[in-house]
Amino acid sequence: MSNYKIKPSILPGFMELLPIEQRKFNDIVEKITKVYEENGCLPIDTPIIEKAEILLAKNAGETEKQVYAFQKGSNNLALRFDLTVPFARYTSQYFNDLNFPLKRYQIGKVYRGERNQRGRYREFYQCDVDIIGKDKLSIKNDALVISLASKAFKSIGLKDYKFQISNRKILSALLSSLNIESSIDVMILIDKYDKIGEQTFKEELDKLVNKESAKIINKVININGSKDKVLEELELLNIQDEKFTLGLNELKEVTTTLEVLGVYDSEYIINLKIIRGLDYYTGTVFETLLINNEEYGSICSGGRYDNLAENYTNNILPGVGISIGLTRLFFVLKEIGFVESYKLPSKVEYLIIPIGDTLKYCGEVYKKLTESGKAVEMYFEDDKLKKKLNYANKLEIPYVILLGEEEEANKSINIKNMITGKQETLKFEDIF
Amino acid sequence: MSNYKIKPSILPGFMELLPIEQRKFNDIVEKITKVYEENGCLPIDTPIIEKAEILLAKNAGETEKQVYAFQKGSNNLALRFDLTVPFARYTSQYFNDLNFPLKRYQIGKVYRGERNQRGRYREFYQCDVDIIGKDKLSIKNDALVISLASKAFKSIGLKDYKFQISNRKILSALLSSLNIESSIDVMILIDKYDKIGEQTFKEELDKLVNKESAKIINKVININGSKDKVLEELELLNIQDEKFTLGLNELKEVTTTLEVLGVYDSEYIINLKIIRGLDYYTGTVFETLLINNEEYGSICSGGRYDNLAENYTNNILPGVGISIGLTRLFFVLKEIGFVESYKLPSKVEYLIIPIGDTLKYCGEVYKKLTESGKAVEMYFEDDKLKKKLNYANKLEIPYVILLGEEEEANKSINIKNMITGKQETLKFEDIF
Repeated sequence: MSNYKIKPSILPGFMELLPIEQRKFNDIVEKITKVYEENGCLPIDTPIIEKAEILLAKNAGETEKQVYAFQKGSNNLALRFDLTVPFARYTSQYFNDLNFPLKRYQIGKVYRGERNQRGRYREFYQCDVDIIGKDKLSIKNDALVISLASKAFKSIGLKDYKFQISNRKILSALLSSLNIESSIDVMILIDKYDKIGEQTFKEELDKLVNKESAKIINKVININGSKDKVLEELELLNIQDEKFTLGLNELKEVTTTLEVLGVYDSEYIINLKIIRGLDYYTGTVFETLLINNEEYGSICSGGRYDNLAENYTNNILPGVGISIGLTRLFFVLKEIGFVESYKLPSKVEYLIIPIGDTLKYCGEVYKKLTESGKAVEMYFEDDKLKKKLNYANKLEIPYVILLGEEEEANKSINIKNMITGKQETLKFEDIF
Repeated sequence: MSNYKIKPSILPGFMELLPIEQRKFNDIVEKITKVYEENGCLPIDTPIIEKAEILLAKNAGETEKQVYAFQKGSNNLALRFDLTVPFARYTSQYFNDLNFPLKRYQIGKVYRGERNQRGRYREFYQCDVDIIGKDKLSIKNDALVISLASKAFKSIGLKDYKFQISNRKILSALLSSLNIESSIDVMILIDKYDKIGEQTFKEELDKLVNKESAKIINKVININGSKDKVLEELELLNIQDEKFTLGLNELKEVTTTLEVLGVYDSEYIINLKIIRGLDYYTGTVFETLLINNEEYGSICSGGRYDNLAENYTNNILPGVGISIGLTRLFFVLKEIGFVESYKLPSKVEYLIIPIGDTLKYCGEVYKKLTESGKAVEMYFEDDKLKKKLNYANKLEIPYVILLGEEEEANKSINIKNMITGKQETLKFEDIF
């Protein structure tokens, strides 16, 4: 037993909460889970450690540098950096045992050794839904996953969010109709629009395309207003290109289905500047900003992809996915005061405090209460009454039951409402 | 887009479930969580990766060889191998912000690179409760944690378990009263009793102690019967040793409190062969066996310790803890057929199937149902009716609502009970 103490600390970039905040975090997880499940999503849980060759099968680009990879024995291992790659592996592996269309959700921690910055975490929760079809999948599902995010936010009482929805086919077709060779560079530039600002964007764009094209691109990506207005203006561009028409029709179908699923027009805008980087998305893409707190970036993103698991299987698995980055969202919700005002009652309703040698009687009361479904805690420590009441106060337990020898003799209970302070003695048989 | 496919697989020793079993696993987690919370336990969530110096502060013995340790940059990192060490670190780190007695629960994955064996996992869930006092903690809490396990098992419908309870002070005092020098070796040997069997045990014991002592040890560790009988026989040994008396009194207090907390005598036995290895336990120790399936070993263990966090703080933090090894338990429950008979209704109550171009009307019905709190899914794919009904069948969704043009025109719904097969047409206004 050494007297030398190691300073207790965790690694930078890892979020850890005190119990009072952890309860709120878990409550949010529970509510998101409920929304996912009641909408038909099935849970899976994949290992946090996988074979490196599986996780890095697809060139993960920038992300790859951030992966926690290591050896154990002769195995090359890595910690998952998202939940999509493991899901692709999972779907291929158990393909014959799964029902399609498959709606799966997974809530779990992922790992990225990012540069340490405020609000960026190296271990963080993702709350993912992906809907996968065998060979085909209706575009209506793109609206469905957005509606799940909408329901999730509503279920936790979050109001000030706005989905930013686009369809990559539209811009991509526009760029090819303009015969732009460096269309990927232009897409990357548009993706950075909000970061670099209008002025820099225009300067950079002028380096990539001619004046006429720049004008059109600037016009199109800045189309805004109500969804009907945006859709109409896109129509009026009159671009005769199959892919453009397809993208526009998909976008229309998404907005129609959003209405069917109860998502209000006020919850989203069409924003053609949304690209979602060089990710694997091929159609619908979306992000979510907090109104008046846009600088925190997207709290929930996703989109449509053509083929989930091409690295592991020949089956064609188109899908659409959504991910709520919960650790980051919780950080933001703390910053904007939402967490503090998020009130959760104590799970415990009654604290029984034995006074003197009344344990057996306490047991009788305890049994009656728990058998009727109440959540009851008993205070066991030999402390002063003040300290015992203080325990109930700190944990916000609404009722304290004091059971002394008098109560035992009279078969009564002395109950104190910790909010009003009202204290009364009731007969045991009157209550139970 | 390469045509080369990587065989989708996970590492050996990692459990992965199909959605139907995952739902059951998660339901068990939810029920255990509910029991823990309604009994006043507060949640914490610690990082899976910690500084190696923190996790390996205490000599972790055999476990240390199994730890997943690696470097990232210049940091020595490790994956947690239990939830107790991180909790010790946590309690020290946030000591001033925590309320004592502190009842904390944590449910999460831990990692041990064990030799690969059937039923042993390298990634597994632990469901832990620890109750920690500042300087002191009533022995009644030892009964409380056992009662939590009892309630948890009852809440999932598990009946055939038996807690094996002892107090290490009793044997330890007995051995010193016999002036046995190699008392640690004897304890280790007793710990192995069930593995090696009576015959080998006796032979090995004879090598460590004299005949007279061996006789007494064999007698004491084999005391069995009802708790009252065991306690009486221990009393009758008439061992005049303070520690023995203390251990016996603690054991008595635990059994008395178990009754107060509603744990039946039939749920446990006193088993003096329970040692819990060379762990840090100093008083109460217990394990849990499944009746008629004892060969699977303990599914839930724990005990009392004098000081949780001596490596990180000078504060004296006595406590008592319990851990349900859920991944292992689930494996066993699968083996004995419990999982298969564990029935869970679908979370989705209604599947709306649009027939023809009735999406808007489907939306009306969907909204009415969801607004009244029902869990509703809509089938979006353009499949044959049989396939749509099959989807509901496979996911065990109890009701399907078919909405064709006729239903839209009449403002009616055609609802099919998937269990009875009964199908009927109801007027929209009659239902909502």
